[in-house]
Amino acid sequence: MATIKRLGVLTSGGDAPGMNAAIRAVLLTAASYNIEVVGFKHGYIGLLEQEYKTLMPQHVQNIIQRGGTILKSARCPALQTPEGPKLAAATLHQLNIDALIVIGGDGSFRGALEIAKHYQGQIIGVPGTIDNDVDGTDNTIGYATAIDTALDAIDKIRDTADAFERIFLVELMGRHSGFIALSAGIAGGAEQIICPEFGPLSAEDLRRVLTPIQHAQLLMGKASYIIVVAENSYPGGTTALADALTKAIGIECRACILGHIQRGGSPVGADRILGSKLGAYAVEQLLQGAHLQMAGEVNGELSLYPLALTGERTKAIDPFLVRWQQQVGSA
Amino acid sequence: MATIKRLGVLTSGGDAPGMNAAIRAVLLTAASYNIEVVGFKHGYIGLLEQEYKTLMPQHVQNIIQRGGTILKSARCPALQTPEGPKLAAATLHQLNIDALIVIGGDGSFRGALEIAKHYQGQIIGVPGTIDNDVDGTDNTIGYATAIDTALDAIDKIRDTADAFERIFLVELMGRHSGFIALSAGIAGGAEQIICPEFGPLSAEDLRRVLTPIQHAQLLMGKASYIIVVAENSYPGGTTALADALTKAIGIECRACILGHIQRGGSPVGADRILGSKLGAYAVEQLLQGAHLQMAGEVNGELSLYPLALTGERTKAIDPFLVRWQQQVGSA
Amino acid sequence: MATIKRLGVLTSGGDAPGMNAAIRAVLLTAASYNIEVVGFKHGYIGLLEQEYKTLMPQHVQNIIQRGGTILKSARCPALQTPEGPKLAAATLHQLNIDALIVIGGDGSFRGALEIAKHYQGQIIGVPGTIDNDVDGTDNTIGYATAIDTALDAIDKIRDTADAFERIFLVELMGRHSGFIALSAGIAGGAEQIICPEFGPLSAEDLRRVLTPIQHAQLLMGKASYIIVVAENSYPGGTTALADALTKAIGIECRACILGHIQRGGSPVGADRILGSKLGAYAVEQLLQGAHLQMAGEVNGELSLYPLALTGERTKAIDPFLVRWQQQVGSA
Amino acid sequence: MATIKRLGVLTSGGDAPGMNAAIRAVLLTAASYNIEVVGFKHGYIGLLEQEYKTLMPQHVQNIIQRGGTILKSARCPALQTPEGPKLAAATLHQLNIDALIVIGGDGSFRGALEIAKHYQGQIIGVPGTIDNDVDGTDNTIGYATAIDTALDAIDKIRDTADAFERIFLVELMGRHSGFIALSAGIAGGAEQIICPEFGPLSAEDLRRVLTPIQHAQLLMGKASYIIVVAENSYPGGTTALADALTKAIGIECRACILGHIQRGGSPVGADRILGSKLGAYAVEQLLQGAHLQMAGEVNGELSLYPLALTGERTKAIDPFLVRWQQQVGSA
Repeated sequence: MATIKRLGVLTSGGDAPGMNAAIRAVLLTAASYNIEVVGFKHGYIGLLEQEYKTLMPQHVQNIIQRGGTILKSARCPALQTPEGPKLAAATLHQLNIDALIVIGGDGSFRGALEIAKHYQGQIIGVPGTIDNDVDGTDNTIGYATAIDTALDAIDKIRDTADAFERIFLVELMGRHSGFIALSAGIAGGAEQIICPEFGPLSAEDLRRVLTPIQHAQLLMGKASYIIVVAENSYPGGTTALADALTKAIGIECRACILGHIQRGGSPVGADRILGSKLGAYAVEQLLQGAHLQMAGEVNGELSLYPLALTGERTKAIDPFLVRWQQQVGSA
Repeated sequence: MATIKRLGVLTSGGDAPGMNAAIRAVLLTAASYNIEVVGFKHGYIGLLEQEYKTLMPQHVQNIIQRGGTILKSARCPALQTPEGPKLAAATLHQLNIDALIVIGGDGSFRGALEIAKHYQGQIIGVPGTIDNDVDGTDNTIGYATAIDTALDAIDKIRDTADAFERIFLVELMGRHSGFIALSAGIAGGAEQIICPEFGPLSAEDLRRVLTPIQHAQLLMGKASYIIVVAENSYPGGTTALADALTKAIGIECRACILGHIQRGGSPVGADRILGSKLGAYAVEQLLQGAHLQMAGEVNGELSLYPLALTGERTKAIDPFLVRWQQQVGSA
Repeated sequence: MATIKRLGVLTSGGDAPGMNAAIRAVLLTAASYNIEVVGFKHGYIGLLEQEYKTLMPQHVQNIIQRGGTILKSARCPALQTPEGPKLAAATLHQLNIDALIVIGGDGSFRGALEIAKHYQGQIIGVPGTIDNDVDGTDNTIGYATAIDTALDAIDKIRDTADAFERIFLVELMGRHSGFIALSAGIAGGAEQIICPEFGPLSAEDLRRVLTPIQHAQLLMGKASYIIVVAENSYPGGTTALADALTKAIGIECRACILGHIQRGGSPVGADRILGSKLGAYAVEQLLQGAHLQMAGEVNGELSLYPLALTGERTKAIDPFLVRWQQQVGSA
Repeated sequence: MATIKRLGVLTSGGDAPGMNAAIRAVLLTAASYNIEVVGFKHGYIGLLEQEYKTLMPQHVQNIIQRGGTILKSARCPALQTPEGPKLAAATLHQLNIDALIVIGGDGSFRGALEIAKHYQGQIIGVPGTIDNDVDGTDNTIGYATAIDTALDAIDKIRDTADAFERIFLVELMGRHSGFIALSAGIAGGAEQIICPEFGPLSAEDLRRVLTPIQHAQLLMGKASYIIVVAENSYPGGTTALADALTKAIGIECRACILGHIQRGGSPVGADRILGSKLGAYAVEQLLQGAHLQMAGEVNGELSLYPLALTGERTKAIDPFLVRWQQQVGSA
């Protein structure tokens, strides 16, 4: 078992509901092994600017239900300078930190790999991002809550769409992946889902979007119709897409951009449990000697995955749901 | 007591949570007086196109908790033609409707007044709109739910604003009034609130917005800062305002446009109760002979108000809250 | 204007959602007048045991959305001893507290009146209790949230009652008053509401409860049926009532006791706004010289009410709703 | 591919959120294969009493977000008589139903196996129960929502427990298994979890419960303390356990029995997605000839499991969480 007396922890990149559960689990687990925990503030900025505090059990009381992160988060361009990672490693050495836990997405993990080049201690990652676009774990911390937040918005828009029998486009987050769009779209009973995995959509091939709308109108008559759109799916954005559709079919289509609401909120049970498990597992695996690994959960089993590979592939969205949505949408 | 054997009811204009509670109360109350109720679909369109059905108790079972309106709603340009109101009145006569209940905002009430010029029966209005901009009632049906929906979004944005210590602008509905913005802003602990009642904001006097931000930063250091903005408060919209602020202070300001989410959702208790009371009261007042009145609640007392005056004045937002927000915001 | 340099604040009795909004408003308002605020912990216990801290703006950041109270609450039997109030007053004098704000119900206000007999400073009360049984204000802080919490439970029980076409009894809080039961019952579309204001219910007159059930079954056939019951409405409790009904009609009636859930949860907008207004108003009225008053809101106007009278009468529940519920329930 | 022209579907046993998503998916998928769907009401009762209707796409519009089941549910003792299963099979034959989908728990599946002895068509099960105690699928439909409903209650009780620094016992459903108790307990940050899997608890060994409480009080001082208890964990119930603890430690311990609230509510995303997938998969597997199987999801893969084995073993609760809870609870 590795000798770890002092452990550092930070949250980096976009905040995600459940990060606090992970911080809490790191502290409680470390405490059960008599390991001290130092929390760095504002992600890597706290490491570069030596903004930190020693965490005590009372600091993590009553935080498991809170959105955001008590350690604050940030993006940190300074870490990408040649000096950044060296400075970060120097702080860790100076504070006698034997191991560092980074809670964030694959961008944050790349930063960790840079620091590792100069740091003597162990580093382990914990996947925390609403986008679920991290390899080596079935789900990332925050993804389940983001689905339910998006879903809550879709349900509300359904009420008004239904009262008015209107067409609404709901734009959800997911810069490079359709995880949130597909899950929230299926769960919201969206009539159509548009996401990056289905190939780029251009002004020229609006037909792909139009045909199912017209088909549904023939079949069901005037009725509410909701299209869930992953961000960056159309040149000019979802508002431009709504305008183009309005022109093409002569029925008003309205865009609703959900935006940063998707990042906040009290985490749902699944994210609190995942955050707790991965936080606890990360500490225990550090004690087993793990280094440059990510703590993930695959098929219900906690497991490690090389930090360097977490952003390599594009994790696939559920093929059954993709196929089914198209099958019943065109029924 | 007026003799009413058959009663018409419709929901018109923007849908509002609690409209179903009002429809349910109309039906249950009418049934207790052995009055038949005919529901017109899609607001005045149902009246013009004779789309209606006789409502039975089972139609209103389990609807009190639903957003939207089971009768559907619509705006109806055809009613504004010279022929529209005559045609509507003709339908009412033809169907032997002795009285009509219109659930909607002051625009819908103007339509009712036009129909009344040609209609022999009684007409009463019930104020249903999230905007609360109807005179003669302290609150409109849907307003309380819209506040809580907006609040839920502000709370979520606070989580991520706080994690990132960022500035967010949250745009809320309220084309001509700041009711939702003021209430949700106060309840969300917004650092600043911008609404029509405070006078127009131009690119030239951004200072009014900037000074409190800079003041807060001096006082509290880097921290989350949320500005709630009523729609139509700035030329080009809230996104343009966010861009202007970003340029002016050099810190990224992000806009979040809440949009139609504010219209949907299961009504909160206050709206279900108000909807139930006003729906019941409308039926009972029709039986007392009321005509061209709106059923409202003022200071906890159910009371009538002339339909023609409901849009006359601009109902004032709470002066205590306006003053207090400015006092503690600049503290 | 009274000279107040140091202000004490405490929360006492059953906690209520929105108490934190009141504490926050007290602090922000006091700060805008350069008044220092001392928060006592655990209600009057903090006064007797000198457990307190000076509140700073950062202590009330991000608390407006939290349930419970950051100052903790408690019942304090020691205050009811002859020595208690003297000791409390002594602490206030010793700490140079010029005025005290007590946030709680009428039991807490009685304690304040006892302390006032020995205290030189001013005392003002702020009504915070979910029960709404305080005179001098239309609503108490916490009542609106308690309604929506109860309503959420009723809606959920409706789902399962409806799926099974069963009879459920839902017991809500309200030891001496039916405010929560009536409001949540109406809003939840309860088929029947039982509360203290309707007179005591005994094993002998179960007929009052049975007849409407049998009537509804004749009318609607087998269907879900929900009875909302205020606590202490039946000897032996709501479970005993459910058992008695089961025996009497031969259909299984199930009791669901909602309990302390009703006290918690993030406050709804109405309670955050009321808490903010009353907290701010209390500070401003102290500066105007108010003493032994309660800060309340009546008919939309902030106003004072003698602290000694807040528990004198039994505040009446809405007579229109009482009458209407009975009218449509027996339709 | 099996020739299926007409498909029967029913929901049986305790209702679970997400059952409507499954019904919707069955219908939409069947429609895409031009299969007619007949829905039986009240579980097997509809089969015995020939209460059914042909489902059309409009019947499943806007139901994915609803709790309960549009087909109603029931327990059906008549199916357990020797004549019951024969009569059920006769109805299926008479109505030319080629295959039957039963949505329910393992008790409902046993009923299906009895019917199969007399029925010529195919039968497939879909696991719908909040208890998650069905083998052959990682999660049952409704389980995820029940966790979040229980969690919401725990969070609310935490608010008041924290304000009062009190001990609360929260009883959750799970007659034979601790799934909900463990998950909601971990997610709610419960200080202690008591469930059947940890062995029976008797009045004699209260020490197992007491020691961690006393340990926590030494460590953290007076603080809120929440014990999540699975139903049937203590002779006399959770109220009796609370009384016994109160006596033993001299601090008031309060019991809160969550009850049927856990069954209702709008399903969370996870249950709507699982319901949609399993409903769709069930139809497709029937077309592939599946018979006497349950449609489940294991390790993210849709798969079949013999209906006869679904209740054979006791599905294990998460051993990592069990171990971790005990480790940090006694830290």
